[in-house]
Amino acid sequence: MTPEEYMQIAIEEAKKGSGFTSPNPLVGAVLVKDGKIVGKDYHHKYGEFHAERNAILNCKEDLAGASLYVTLEPCCHYGKTPPCTQIIIERGIEKVYIGSYDPNPKVNGGGIKQLKDAGIEVVTEVLKEECDALNPVFFHYIEKKEPYVVLKYAMTADGKIATRTGASKWITGEAARKRVQYSRKIYSGIMVGIGTVLADDPMLTCRLENAKNPVRIICDSSLRIPLDSNIVKTAKEVPTIIACTIPKEDKEKSKQDLIIEEKIEKLQQAGCEVIHIGRSKTGVDLKELMKLLGEKGIDSILLEGGSSLNYSALQAGVVSKVETYIAPKIFGGELAKTPVGGIGVEEPGQAFFLKNPKITQIEQDILIEWEVGTCSRES
Amino acid sequence: MTPEEYMQIAIEEAKKGSGFTSPNPLVGAVLVKDGKIVGKDYHHKYGEFHAERNAILNCKEDLAGASLYVTLEPCCHYGKTPPCTQIIIERGIEKVYIGSYDPNPKVNGGGIKQLKDAGIEVVTEVLKEECDALNPVFFHYIEKKEPYVVLKYAMTADGKIATRTGASKWITGEAARKRVQYSRKIYSGIMVGIGTVLADDPMLTCRLENAKNPVRIICDSSLRIPLDSNIVKTAKEVPTIIACTIPKEDKEKSKQDLIIEEKIEKLQQAGCEVIHIGRSKTGVDLKELMKLLGEKGIDSILLEGGSSLNYSALQAGVVSKVETYIAPKIFGGELAKTPVGGIGVEEPGQAFFLKNPKITQIEQDILIEWEVGTCSRES
Repeated sequence: MTPEEYMQIAIEEAKKGSGFTSPNPLVGAVLVKDGKIVGKDYHHKYGEFHAERNAILNCKEDLAGASLYVTLEPCCHYGKTPPCTQIIIERGIEKVYIGSYDPNPKVNGGGIKQLKDAGIEVVTEVLKEECDALNPVFFHYIEKKEPYVVLKYAMTADGKIATRTGASKWITGEAARKRVQYSRKIYSGIMVGIGTVLADDPMLTCRLENAKNPVRIICDSSLRIPLDSNIVKTAKEVPTIIACTIPKEDKEKSKQDLIIEEKIEKLQQAGCEVIHIGRSKTGVDLKELMKLLGEKGIDSILLEGGSSLNYSALQAGVVSKVETYIAPKIFGGELAKTPVGGIGVEEPGQAFFLKNPKITQIEQDILIEWEVGTCSRES
Repeated sequence: MTPEEYMQIAIEEAKKGSGFTSPNPLVGAVLVKDGKIVGKDYHHKYGEFHAERNAILNCKEDLAGASLYVTLEPCCHYGKTPPCTQIIIERGIEKVYIGSYDPNPKVNGGGIKQLKDAGIEVVTEVLKEECDALNPVFFHYIEKKEPYVVLKYAMTADGKIATRTGASKWITGEAARKRVQYSRKIYSGIMVGIGTVLADDPMLTCRLENAKNPVRIICDSSLRIPLDSNIVKTAKEVPTIIACTIPKEDKEKSKQDLIIEEKIEKLQQAGCEVIHIGRSKTGVDLKELMKLLGEKGIDSILLEGGSSLNYSALQAGVVSKVETYIAPKIFGGELAKTPVGGIGVEEPGQAFFLKNPKITQIEQDILIEWEVGTCSRES
């Protein structure tokens, strides 16, 4: 077998941790001795051992002279677990094949250096692109310190997210909706605009078994969220952040200010965290919000609209990925809502460009996953 | 090789006639003797010989005892060419494998009967579904006597066919636009609403080399088309039908009627055919129009919008196929036009349902071809 084939097995191992390792990356490892796979494992869960350590600990063979294939550069620092370089060196592994570099400033080539210093042969960038693709969130978050935002919407074949009356249950079929639940499981946060809360009174929880809920983030400039909405009522059980653009402290308080202050207090008592963000042209300053959410450790957000917030997010350049679900139906309707609203661009050349579509058929529906081009690059 | 494998070769032959045989179907034929392919050919062009006759005439071997694979039931009547059953019988072919039945009332099982009566063994429905799929237009037109309508639109990933300012050049890339030109070549007619003419002043011709232009059909209830529009100016070179809802004869003529009469005369002098159709709720009665166009021998129409006409056509149940081109870009814009407008449905369950999506990536764009579900079935 070629190094690429062994690395492919390591990639398959890595995927097994999907949904459990955040904010850590998915990592897989394979041990090969005398042309035989003698061990393989992955990073199972945040806080637990890394992939290479798991593979080494579970292997009963003498690893002197063995090769290790690992999708991410081994760590060289003490974090929640001891450095992986140490055990690799101790066990006499002779050659290490690495997929992605670890951009974590605590690693960032340091793992490779330690291995080389110990006389181990290191081959880097083996299936690098495929290994990088395992962890778009991890790479984004560690480099930008802001969450990786996935804009998701479900529309008809004629681009509608609801009928003209606003009815939207359902656009896509069960299998596609289940996949959205899976996204709610793997991303740390879920974000909607106040319009969506007022229209649908959603829970925004993950309905899969044994899944932790994403942190709910509501963009609500003037704090219109009802105290008896499902979100506020469950804020003690499910972390909830409400981002408003009301200044934190006003010197002179008007009657209106006092009403707002009281509402903030009630929201906080209900378990919501109310944060005060600057205003952009269209509402909450999303660049500032992302910076703040990044500081809170939220590495990824599933953005579920509505159409105004979706446009604002694209315009703010905070979106990294777009998930377009297309249902095999046509609603028509000049006034029916589309996935991205707002004012919109003037000229086709000013569009937000997408790239690298990945197309999946999910029963009768079609999912297109795109990376966002230039715009999010600027973020 | 199996009969299915030989038929697959006949199907590939059939496709070579694409764009030239209308209103005849695409047909391919393969001759096999002693397990060897001794001839194959296809129906090249309307008015010329049929596939099986071509294959037989071009074959130098003695065909006594040979097998014939043909994608469509051989004809048994004198049309533009003599019946194919005759030459099959004459040459001593022993066994005939057939894909599709010919629904043409002049054939419709008669070909099979003649072959059987002559002692030839006939196997029917070999890759029938694949053979039927070669000729959706042919089967539709011969059964319903109305054109097969393909609703085509190009939209962004957020369902817009133009920016908020109406700019739409271009949504998709060159390769996708070239494919649309190919559609203009293979379908007999092209239809747009007067809104599209007023907004874009299009030519609606086929810009591919050596291609005949589709008949241009403009739905223009009150004859608003400008006499100096590109379409009217070229109506002597390119067949042009203007469908209005103005009654043909009014007993008492008002001044307005006289103006209209003069306009009709000028349009006719310019080469346009003006037809008078009944009114539906939203404009030209499209059911009636399709019936009339069918009588005129138009077997297929590429419907290129705008969004109001697209909705009316879906609602009238005259659309058989939808072609959705999706460009990797987002325009946004609450007021930007979407592919299907009109009033739209009220509830998701009332949607026009699509099925059997066929997905093709055309450079950076994505094409989804769908069949229309229940609705067009009623037409």
